[in-house]
Formats: sequence, C-alpha cells, structure tokens
Amino acid sequence: MTQVRKYINSEHVPTVPPLSHAVCFGELAFVSGQVGIDHNNQVPEHFSEEVENAFTALEHVLAAAGSSLDQLVKVNCYLSNIAYRDELNELYMQRFPEPRPARTTVEVGLAHGLRFEIDAIATRGPE
Amino acid sequence: MTQVRKYINSEHVPTVPPLSHAVCFGELAFVSGQVGIDHNNQVPEHFSEEVENAFTALEHVLAAAGSSLDQLVKVNCYLSNIAYRDELNELYMQRFPEPRPARTTVEVGLAHGLRFEIDAIATRGPE
Amino acid sequence: MTQVRKYINSEHVPTVPPLSHAVCFGELAFVSGQVGIDHNNQVPEHFSEEVENAFTALEHVLAAAGSSLDQLVKVNCYLSNIAYRDELNELYMQRFPEPRPARTTVEVGLAHGLRFEIDAIATRGPE
Repeated sequence: MTQVRKYINSEHVPTVPPLSHAVCFGELAFVSGQVGIDHNNQVPEHFSEEVENAFTALEHVLAAAGSSLDQLVKVNCYLSNIAYRDELNELYMQRFPEPRPARTTVEVGLAHGLRFEIDAIATRGPE
Repeated sequence: MTQVRKYINSEHVPTVPPLSHAVCFGELAFVSGQVGIDHNNQVPEHFSEEVENAFTALEHVLAAAGSSLDQLVKVNCYLSNIAYRDELNELYMQRFPEPRPARTTVEVGLAHGLRFEIDAIATRGPE
Repeated sequence: MTQVRKYINSEHVPTVPPLSHAVCFGELAFVSGQVGIDHNNQVPEHFSEEVENAFTALEHVLAAAGSSLDQLVKVNCYLSNIAYRDELNELYMQRFPEPRPARTTVEVGLAHGLRFEIDAIATRGPE
C-alpha cells in the first residue's frame, strides 16, 4: 500500500502561506526552517533567546508531526554569522539529548535580521 | 527485496557532468538544484522569468522521476539576495498548489550571476 | 516492525560533541557536513588537498554507516567562494563514480577558514 504525505502545521507556531511547518511521509518528517521570533513577531535582542525560541518552535512542529527532539536524524543550522557557532553549540547541547543527530552548520543571509534558523529531518511514531 | 537507486535526467533540462538531475530511491526522489537559465544558457534579465524557468526545470525533472509539483515534501530555495523573498513567494504560491511542502529559504552565493536556485525532495508514483 | 535510528561515528574522523557523523534509518544514511582538515586539525594550504581530505572523511563516515561513495543519493557542496566550483567539479568527478548523485552547490560562510564542506544522503547495505 502506497504511503501518503501528511501536511503538518503546529498551532503554537505562526503559519506562513508559502509552506507547511512539516510534511510527513512514512516514518519520516521533513521540517521547514524554524526561527526564533517572539510573541510580537520580533527578533529577540539576545542571540540565546532567539535560538531557544527557534528550538521551541522546532519542538512544537515535531510534536505536531508525532516526533520529538530525540528522534531527529539530520539537522541544518543556519547562522547569519558563523562566529555565533560556539554559542549555538552550547545552547544546542543543553537542549538536544545524546546521541545527537547528524548536522551541518553554515553562514547564510537570513530574512528580517534573524541570526539563526534550523530545519530538520526526523523519524516519527512510537519507539 | 532491497530497493535500487534510479538516476534520472530530464531531456528538457541541460545535463551537467558532475550530477544527475535527480536520484530516486523507493518512493522518494531527491532533486538537484535547478536554475532558471534560458534556452541560450543565459540568466534572464527579469527575476520573475528566472524563477519561472527554474520552476519549469524542477517540474521537468520531477516528471522524469515519476513525480510532480504537488508531490513535493521539502523544498530549499536559495536566493542571491534575501530581499527577493517577497517576490519569490508571490511567484511560488501561484505555481505550487496547496497544501504546500515544507521549505527553507536562505541567501547564499550562486554561480554565473544566478539569483535563484531550488532543490527538493518529493514522493513519486501514482497516488 | 518499526525501524530504529543508528548513530554512526567513524574512528577515522575527529568526533565533535554536538553531532554524530551520520544517522542511519532503514536503508538511508544521513551524513553530517564533512570538512578537509588535516591530521593536525589545520586547513591545508591547497584547496585541492582540503577537498580530497573532505571526500576521504565522507568515505570513512559512509563506510562506518555501511555505505559508500557509489551509493550516494543527494550531495550538498558548500564553498566559501563559488569561484572554486570548477576546481571542485574536476576533483569531484575523479572521485565520485558515475552515475553521479543529485547535487546542490552554493557559496556560504564556513568556520575556521574552511573553503569546502560536503554533506550527503546515501543508501546503505549490500547491493
């Protein structure tokens, strides 16, 4: 029997018209780039708050997809300045349990003055 | 029975030696970055034409892989300037049917004066 | 029966706390960004040496995941300067056998003065 795509949007994360928060297919969930804007749609003053918000958004989307931070397979981290990498790694290791997913981290240009964005592929379902 | 990889090249898109246009595995197709050069291998003057050409190239590759724009799971959009994002979104929403795939959009450096590139993961086969 | 994630680290590649070298799920392996630092953790003087080192690191991780360079499905190449693309392509085509995987290549900022990084999705297991 052919599997079907499931389109996921978390009620806890702002929706944007051009994309679904995640799309599931079989046991995999493909998550859109999540960012750390606050409840007023502003970029927080502190990098750490922005990153934590983005992690929380990722967590919400994974939950809506039947997944979680400990079911991540591959993560991409996008920084507006690669110099943030050490601070990112500290925050990341506190929040993402071992064993950790595969990851690639690069410096790119982000919209709206954002300093951080994260997308991911995860497994889903009971373990 | 182990699944096999299928290497796909569309006859409607210029082939380049270092890569296949897409590789299929099971019900998934992984598509190379598609760009919007015209029939003379030039970058169009207008951003909108470049983007539409890239969407058409993506459509051709998906078709050759037994997939289509409405079977996309995850899309990555690469812009040479993130300021193009709003214009991209307008063009994107006209061309990509709802429900839309997961997406990440970042600003990077592209070759040959290109302003846009898009790659994707899609499902394939009859639905 | 639900599949399980397998976390892979190659003994031939430096481990870093925030990530696993690869995570396998079913017949797929998702590989972290691999770089071309030498045995003294330095970036080689010559671009070609840096690229070859990164390819070797990728090969080691794929081997640890039960995969290989000829089982790649999708590759992402990251260059600190897109002008390196032609030189990358020459090295790439010597090392990666046909038929070649899908690929996307973009210019981004990389850490520590690196000029090249590569991540990948591959199939695994006997063929």
